[in-house]
Amino acid sequence: MEKEFSRWKKQCLKKLDLSKKGSVDEDISHLVSLINSRERFFTTSSCSGRIILIDRVSGISDIQKQNCHWLFVSHQKCKPDDLISALERSNGDAVFKFEPFVLHVQCRQLDDAQMMHSVAINAGFRNSGLTVGKLGKIMMAVRSTHVLEVPLSHNGKVLVEQEYIHFLTELANQKMEENLRRIQRFYDNLQSALLTQNFPKPQIKDPPISEDLQVSPHDLEAENGQRNNPTLVYQRRRKQGKKTLDNSCYGDSSSSIPELEDCLHLFT
Amino acid sequence: MEKEFSRWKKQCLKKLDLSKKGSVDEDISHLVSLINSRERFFTTSSCSGRIILIDRVSGISDIQKQNCHWLFVSHQKCKPDDLISALERSNGDAVFKFEPFVLHVQCRQLDDAQMMHSVAINAGFRNSGLTVGKLGKIMMAVRSTHVLEVPLSHNGKVLVEQEYIHFLTELANQKMEENLRRIQRFYDNLQSALLTQNFPKPQIKDPPISEDLQVSPHDLEAENGQRNNPTLVYQRRRKQGKKTLDNSCYGDSSSSIPELEDCLHLFT
Repeated sequence: MEKEFSRWKKQCLKKLDLSKKGSVDEDISHLVSLINSRERFFTTSSCSGRIILIDRVSGISDIQKQNCHWLFVSHQKCKPDDLISALERSNGDAVFKFEPFVLHVQCRQLDDAQMMHSVAINAGFRNSGLTVGKLGKIMMAVRSTHVLEVPLSHNGKVLVEQEYIHFLTELANQKMEENLRRIQRFYDNLQSALLTQNFPKPQIKDPPISEDLQVSPHDLEAENGQRNNPTLVYQRRRKQGKKTLDNSCYGDSSSSIPELEDCLHLFT
Repeated sequence: MEKEFSRWKKQCLKKLDLSKKGSVDEDISHLVSLINSRERFFTTSSCSGRIILIDRVSGISDIQKQNCHWLFVSHQKCKPDDLISALERSNGDAVFKFEPFVLHVQCRQLDDAQMMHSVAINAGFRNSGLTVGKLGKIMMAVRSTHVLEVPLSHNGKVLVEQEYIHFLTELANQKMEENLRRIQRFYDNLQSALLTQNFPKPQIKDPPISEDLQVSPHDLEAENGQRNNPTLVYQRRRKQGKKTLDNSCYGDSSSSIPELEDCLHLFT
């Protein structure tokens, strides 16, 4: 298996060399290099994060991705005018999206993936998770819930004012900045984990069952992005107090309503 | 470990019984029951999906979840007027969200989690993934990318027309319907897997490395939701042809541009 892993990695990095020219997003090249410099890991795909505007044929369900085309893509912050002019080219249903950092890392052993997963969660990428394939390939996907998805036109008709596009651009740019901060945190934490531990025990503690049941899974997975302390795991931050609206799902202890801050912070 | 699992499950289900009244969302009670009827699994939290409107204090970064409150929550389809009247109560930055089905399932062994993961991916929940805790607790999280996140007000001032709210409501309701179809697909596939196999080999095939490198991870994880065939795994559907805009990230083979349908369909 170890031999197999080395072979996969070689095969992958060889392929990388062929396609390197401009293909790793600038903002994550240091992170991709760090991971690929370690024998137990290699990256198979990544995107630093992007702001996009896609146009779908009207009347076609959004789950049918055929007949869509891209009006605008940026991996950096963007300007309202770029979006406004791209939106003018819409003749279907245009949707604006902020898509955060995504990274897939193949790991030699489950331990390695657990460590990498822990680092990702602690950096704020709370939708990260492992996949264990049939033949034992272990993949760790870094994912975030830090998104925007905003419909902007219907049948080619723009649905919002230019002022709204300005506001949206500002918001997406703020998300891009926060996304970069998380990437840097991921890089720093990974570097520490790789340097100081050879290899670390996985940091993800098992959930205390009695507490699992107290919150909505949406809140449970909601990102705060402010935490950086790997020793605080499954920290419970419920504040009993004012309840406003019944948003409870199973996993809530009762019909009581957790507010947004009222979360069980997974792995943080 | 097996004994430990049974103890955890008992502890969890006991807790469930205490909080059952209305706490499992109606649309997934059959699924939660099916999972909890099997000795190798139990659910720790779930939400069938919801349409929400939250109000954040203006000027506070969206990553700081303090000082937010809920203006509207529905686990069913909703009406534009419900949202319009809720939005009138905003005095900060209101954000409209569609949040899809989320489920956390604790699994006895890694094999079990792999099977459950495979069923989730095949049902269209492409951001699903495993967590393996320090003490060996294995959790499978069912997650989807099928979201909406739309800012609607700033400093209490509504930024969009009522017509837009009508369009948004329709879109969210369509997403709710598709979400329910996926839940049903998940239920059906899980039932088949549990009935016919005791237990199945995990269906998730390992990725062929040479193909991993061909697409953006965002497209790779994009949901089509149309697939239902567990034998088609990592099916490659690239169509070489018209290229429109450079959205390539590392993982793309070159600077060539995959269109939206031009995806490597993970696990499908």
